[in-house]
Amino acid sequence: MEAKKKLYGAVDSPSTMRALASLLEHQVEFEFTLIDLEAGEHKKEVFLSLSPFGEIPVFQDGDLTLFESRTIMRYISHAYAVPGKDHIFEEPNLQGIVAGWIDIEDHQFDPPASRLLHEILHKPSIGLSTDVAVVVEEEAKLAKVLDVYEERLGKRKFLGGNKFTSADLTHLPNLHLLTRTRVKELFETRPCVYAWCTGIMSRPAWTKVVDLIERSKSQA
Amino acid sequence: MEAKKKLYGAVDSPSTMRALASLLEHQVEFEFTLIDLEAGEHKKEVFLSLSPFGEIPVFQDGDLTLFESRTIMRYISHAYAVPGKDHIFEEPNLQGIVAGWIDIEDHQFDPPASRLLHEILHKPSIGLSTDVAVVVEEEAKLAKVLDVYEERLGKRKFLGGNKFTSADLTHLPNLHLLTRTRVKELFETRPCVYAWCTGIMSRPAWTKVVDLIERSKSQA
Repeated sequence: MEAKKKLYGAVDSPSTMRALASLLEHQVEFEFTLIDLEAGEHKKEVFLSLSPFGEIPVFQDGDLTLFESRTIMRYISHAYAVPGKDHIFEEPNLQGIVAGWIDIEDHQFDPPASRLLHEILHKPSIGLSTDVAVVVEEEAKLAKVLDVYEERLGKRKFLGGNKFTSADLTHLPNLHLLTRTRVKELFETRPCVYAWCTGIMSRPAWTKVVDLIERSKSQA
Repeated sequence: MEAKKKLYGAVDSPSTMRALASLLEHQVEFEFTLIDLEAGEHKKEVFLSLSPFGEIPVFQDGDLTLFESRTIMRYISHAYAVPGKDHIFEEPNLQGIVAGWIDIEDHQFDPPASRLLHEILHKPSIGLSTDVAVVVEEEAKLAKVLDVYEERLGKRKFLGGNKFTSADLTHLPNLHLLTRTRVKELFETRPCVYAWCTGIMSRPAWTKVVDLIERSKSQA
């Protein structure tokens, strides 16, 4: 019998969505366990024994316990590469380029994206007002990042090269959430970015992630 | 003839030191080119063609150009694994654990460490005063991170397992800089952290990085 795989996460968490996207892209079967962040379940001892900083998501694959969503994504893409339609490059050079764009998402794209989502979606959801000055400032930062993406995606279809890889996948959660807000304009006004963005968001695995998140929300 | 390897970086940059440490640990020969950050050399077109966000370090290995220090480190550790004394685990499970701790350094350890170095070292070097309140706040954050490390290192010699890997190496630049400041106390008061810290800082490759940095400084 195959060892059981479990993902622990939360429905409103972009990092959980990143891990889900990787699992579904690679057709890995798993159990999804919701962690109740409002109840502080992620800071209780039982969860801290899995994730030492109490961060979601956590992925268990038999005896292996992994934390950090980009680590989970990297692991799944290597451990469960789908023959014939895999999302990794075997060559170390091309792997290096994919890894570089995973880190660029982490260090350049994610910080303004996360601050925008916090202002525009999270704060109103807990009764606080959006700080418009912060939104304008972070939009300007994201715009500069997207200018670099526009140039890159003008020369190749995907960030890592000529096929979809984790370098693209890692952007999906923030793209999904941002394009439902006023920030969508930053994407629409950059044709290569917008084609890339709509293309990767229409992948069947990502549609399944969105469905799963919506279903989990209504059950939560 | 072997393709030429070049590292572009700056002497006061922890991320440059991370790439240097990886190159020297793996006994890779390379040319080191200093980028003058004060003169804005990293934001000029010629450098932006290598590193789209104008960030250092950049590593060139023949036709391959890599940016993001942790990506460079991951690439080197796989492409130049030293037989018999390599710093990676071949098994995907153990690689996953190492990757998780590389991301923990990036997301948990580095943010307070960088803010402390900015306050304590960088600001005075450009004539600004250290904000003591920020120092106290960031020390408290780092202390919590180090409590988790203390527990982990009480059970195994290195963060990734029973041998030195990139999960340890990635910490070296900030450890080196922080232990020369008042923050050293946070390390000294945690015996397992301190043994790990002094152990990895005394590795011959790291000593060479420190020498190289000092020599480059005096030539700059």
